[in-house]
Amino acid sequence: MAKASFDPQEFRSALSTFTTGVTIITTRAENGDPVGITANSFNSVSLNPPMVLWSLDKSAMSLPAFTSNKHWNVHILSVEQEALSGRFASRGEDKFKGLELDTGINNIPLLKNCTARFNCRTAFIYEGGDHMIFVGEVLGFDKSERPPLAFQSGQYALAARKPREGVQLGATPPPECSYTEDLLGYLAGRAHFQLVAALQNVLKTQQLNEQQFFILSVLSIQDSLTIEEINTFVDYTGGAVTLEDMAALEEQDYVVLVKKNGSSRYVLTANGREASLKQIAVAKAVEEQIADQIGAGDVEALKILFKRLIKATDPGLPDLWATKEENDAKKTAS
Amino acid sequence: MAKASFDPQEFRSALSTFTTGVTIITTRAENGDPVGITANSFNSVSLNPPMVLWSLDKSAMSLPAFTSNKHWNVHILSVEQEALSGRFASRGEDKFKGLELDTGINNIPLLKNCTARFNCRTAFIYEGGDHMIFVGEVLGFDKSERPPLAFQSGQYALAARKPREGVQLGATPPPECSYTEDLLGYLAGRAHFQLVAALQNVLKTQQLNEQQFFILSVLSIQDSLTIEEINTFVDYTGGAVTLEDMAALEEQDYVVLVKKNGSSRYVLTANGREASLKQIAVAKAVEEQIADQIGAGDVEALKILFKRLIKATDPGLPDLWATKEENDAKKTAS
Repeated sequence: MAKASFDPQEFRSALSTFTTGVTIITTRAENGDPVGITANSFNSVSLNPPMVLWSLDKSAMSLPAFTSNKHWNVHILSVEQEALSGRFASRGEDKFKGLELDTGINNIPLLKNCTARFNCRTAFIYEGGDHMIFVGEVLGFDKSERPPLAFQSGQYALAARKPREGVQLGATPPPECSYTEDLLGYLAGRAHFQLVAALQNVLKTQQLNEQQFFILSVLSIQDSLTIEEINTFVDYTGGAVTLEDMAALEEQDYVVLVKKNGSSRYVLTANGREASLKQIAVAKAVEEQIADQIGAGDVEALKILFKRLIKATDPGLPDLWATKEENDAKKTAS
Repeated sequence: MAKASFDPQEFRSALSTFTTGVTIITTRAENGDPVGITANSFNSVSLNPPMVLWSLDKSAMSLPAFTSNKHWNVHILSVEQEALSGRFASRGEDKFKGLELDTGINNIPLLKNCTARFNCRTAFIYEGGDHMIFVGEVLGFDKSERPPLAFQSGQYALAARKPREGVQLGATPPPECSYTEDLLGYLAGRAHFQLVAALQNVLKTQQLNEQQFFILSVLSIQDSLTIEEINTFVDYTGGAVTLEDMAALEEQDYVVLVKKNGSSRYVLTANGREASLKQIAVAKAVEEQIADQIGAGDVEALKILFKRLIKATDPGLPDLWATKEENDAKKTAS
């Protein structure tokens, strides 16, 4: 380390490993125009008196507004405000266009649906190289339950929180044991099976097994499929669907076989659609219980990571939500 | 919002929704003693000249050291340095005890295995309520590939990053479709099945199906089990193991049936153990490929969230890594 002069890009990259939240800071220019910028240089400073700080590029168009107006609002953005962050990070003119605002102190723009908001009055403006450091006394604040957005290494992020009590599931295995609870495949399997198990009560009353549940799910999205098409969608779950499997579902009045133009297609009956909707409702209820326990932001983070894992290991499965034509095009392209 | 006076606890809670990284900042006292504190009030200030800032409680024991010594190092901690963060956040005397240090400029303590490190010289010390704000010019820095630790709402956290290109898997379903790719159960299932599919080649050469793979996995951790015990461990995967299933594994020379004290127990053969080790090796290779694609920190975040999901939905499964006695005790307790 310790180079007297160094590459600014590398310096920025090293700095950006420090995770931050994302804020929008607003004020009003002398002519009354609303002004706002996205900043991740925010931090708390003092509890008594309550103070926060952030820094602003000396070349920023908003500098005159922030130096002339002593009042400004800091908004800690929620995970749903990524687009708003992008809007206020750009040099556009109409940043506030179409935004519904809350009424703030001194008529300073106050954005809605944030994780937390702080109404501040400039206490000090300090010199900081190519930036000015704004230290503000906090006059008021509020906080919602919306999970906050984070930023790390140039990407938006969500925090996956580590509870203080730790996250170990089972006993610590002896060191020679190569199969541990830290194996990603074990964790994914156990998560999947436990989530299905949480559905078992409804599946039992519907006299359906896991595979039949998958079949109804597929038909609830893409109705009227041949058995070959059903198999392209459930194939990856490991078990091939047979005509007998489908006949059993017919028997139970969940699906009906429709012959048209020489092809035999399965269609959900009203009963089948109702059964599927009930399963989805239970799955969503389970998901809400999980969100209550681990936090809505953590569930969102989990979904993002699930999707990234699925993309990273996708063997080229057909898209359940695409039309047949789109899937054929995808197949041809790959 | 806008209360003239407010509860400091609530204020702290609102501030803490702003996600931060975690740093340790070190210097040396006038008597030469190493000094270090954990701080999350760090942030970047200026690129040209390169400057960073952080703030220190005026009542901190380390204040005299930081005001007298112009040189200090900022260490952005990695996800593996949570314990170090705790150590430097306490008022203990021997924070550096047993720590191996790198050689820093001006003999300022330089910690190892961090995500990034900055060697700084105080440029300004500013007033900030009950804290002092230290602005330092960065004289040198380095950066590793270790994923950084984060902190949010009083908990350590890992960032689950959202790629700029988005994370959507498939086509957008019509609004009336209640089964979407955002259903947690769908994502968990697809993740599980794709991870197992990545193992299919080795399972195929071993002539094993998914259930047999689960059985060998269980026996690789807890060898010498009765079929009832095997079933208590694989039960949650949905398929009951029969004597025929076990006989097939015997036939293939993966397990052997040992009768002892009137009970019949299955033990992995050398061949069975080798097969299991090969499966685990492949599972670990798949995991490494995923880490290469989505990032090691994101895989760690995923594991934490998996474990929290599993805890939140655990129907009381026996611990595969505990002894029989421990599991019996757990069963009695619940």
